[in-house]
Amino acid sequence: MTNYTHDTVSTQFVEANGIRFAYRRFGKPGSVPIVMNIHFRGTMDHWDPAVTDGLALQREVILFDNAGIGASSGVTPANIPGMATDAITFMTALGVGKADLLGYSIGGKVAQEIAVQAPDLVRKLVLVGTGPRGADTAASRSAEIFSATYDPPEHLWIAAHFLPNAAGREAGLKYLERKFRRRDRSPEVSEASAAAQYAAIVKSNEKSDGVWDYLATIHHPVLVVDGSNDRIIPTVNGFILQQHLPNAQLIIYPDSSHGPFYQYPDLFLAHTNLFLDGECRT
Amino acid sequence: MTNYTHDTVSTQFVEANGIRFAYRRFGKPGSVPIVMNIHFRGTMDHWDPAVTDGLALQREVILFDNAGIGASSGVTPANIPGMATDAITFMTALGVGKADLLGYSIGGKVAQEIAVQAPDLVRKLVLVGTGPRGADTAASRSAEIFSATYDPPEHLWIAAHFLPNAAGREAGLKYLERKFRRRDRSPEVSEASAAAQYAAIVKSNEKSDGVWDYLATIHHPVLVVDGSNDRIIPTVNGFILQQHLPNAQLIIYPDSSHGPFYQYPDLFLAHTNLFLDGECRT
Repeated sequence: MTNYTHDTVSTQFVEANGIRFAYRRFGKPGSVPIVMNIHFRGTMDHWDPAVTDGLALQREVILFDNAGIGASSGVTPANIPGMATDAITFMTALGVGKADLLGYSIGGKVAQEIAVQAPDLVRKLVLVGTGPRGADTAASRSAEIFSATYDPPEHLWIAAHFLPNAAGREAGLKYLERKFRRRDRSPEVSEASAAAQYAAIVKSNEKSDGVWDYLATIHHPVLVVDGSNDRIIPTVNGFILQQHLPNAQLIIYPDSSHGPFYQYPDLFLAHTNLFLDGECRT
Repeated sequence: MTNYTHDTVSTQFVEANGIRFAYRRFGKPGSVPIVMNIHFRGTMDHWDPAVTDGLALQREVILFDNAGIGASSGVTPANIPGMATDAITFMTALGVGKADLLGYSIGGKVAQEIAVQAPDLVRKLVLVGTGPRGADTAASRSAEIFSATYDPPEHLWIAAHFLPNAAGREAGLKYLERKFRRRDRSPEVSEASAAAQYAAIVKSNEKSDGVWDYLATIHHPVLVVDGSNDRIIPTVNGFILQQHLPNAQLIIYPDSSHGPFYQYPDLFLAHTNLFLDGECRT
């Protein structure tokens, strides 16, 4: 166990394929590391330390800014598979032979594409608040939530991750307090990179016959985690993922939206440790 | 901790409302007991000891034969609410002031109706392989599975609880071995009682406008557990329950059918203990 935490670990850099990737690693050395893939407009500093420090008690945690994001150089691709290729470049440069992946929202889409492109690099997947290619977005409030104005501006993330009720607001304020404790922070995502991410999401959600067939090729154990009423990527997409992946467990938490693991971090950590440390195929 | 187990605990009887109820109780005294509601054609001896003994490490477990079933007297009602009324009569006669309920299949339908009729008698609900009133049974293979002939006859339960693949058959054989260890057994369900149960299921699954509205009145914390491909009560019903109950967590296990908790007993016990012992509302 190193003494570093989410708040105190230094940012490091590794260069590959012309991209200087910013990353941080902490937690229990010698374990299979978990590589964290963040959401739209997110950097390393958008993770909830309750989750990252919790995971770090049992395993090594690797946060990174993908190409064109935060403190990393390069250009953010306007498609999800391109982001996955960049993430594989980063993991390979770091010398990670086999990793677990946690992907949140757009990061969950990237994690799926990493598993498709480099299956041997991946042991298990944890997909939170996400969906498949061709996701069912009919009930999404994403456009409304991301186009509104917030005072203070960071309350965007309460609207994006939590339900608009008392329990959601309380959990959201606690999450923001934890998230802003760290001083040495990655720059926020640029407008150009956010636009590329948005284009990638739109392209990824295009419907076509057999759009979910690729899920049958992902044979890794997968834990899918959703809130009961995900206002960004509707909850039904978690059910679709579970039903089409050959080896997936689904957990849906009550009274929660896009950030169920930030609302119930202790329960999420218990469930995720059971999944990641389990001997059996689940 | 008493020294009795699923296999060694004696059957006891309590009489109320003209019915002599057979039951067994074992496990950790002084805790909130968990009352187990079994499936179609099931008696106290159809539970998997891996589950009941596992639960008994942390809490008191109460098995019983409802009216007209197994070693109990009385007549099996041809409707689910009538079965719930009988179960409430039994629990009240036993002096149980507050209990957790585990309901499996038709027992999950009974458990929901107990929560509707006597909400103060119930702390939390665990619903396995079940569905709401007006369940979506379009994909059910129930009629085919229960009308087929098996050699030996008890292999019906492999077909009913597990997927027809190698992992399902292996888990099914282990389940039967555990289930038939006990010598002092309840008589099997009579044809008359099975017919009443069947009529109750058909009636319960009738569709009507607002048939799921009653779920909004069940405010108890609920854990819904399903297999990825429930061939008796299709998996989508677990998702329907989670989406319509105000405080429900859903867990779906991979590569499993109607008996996911018999296929993954250790994982089910870990998840269920987290749910039942959790301080938070989930």
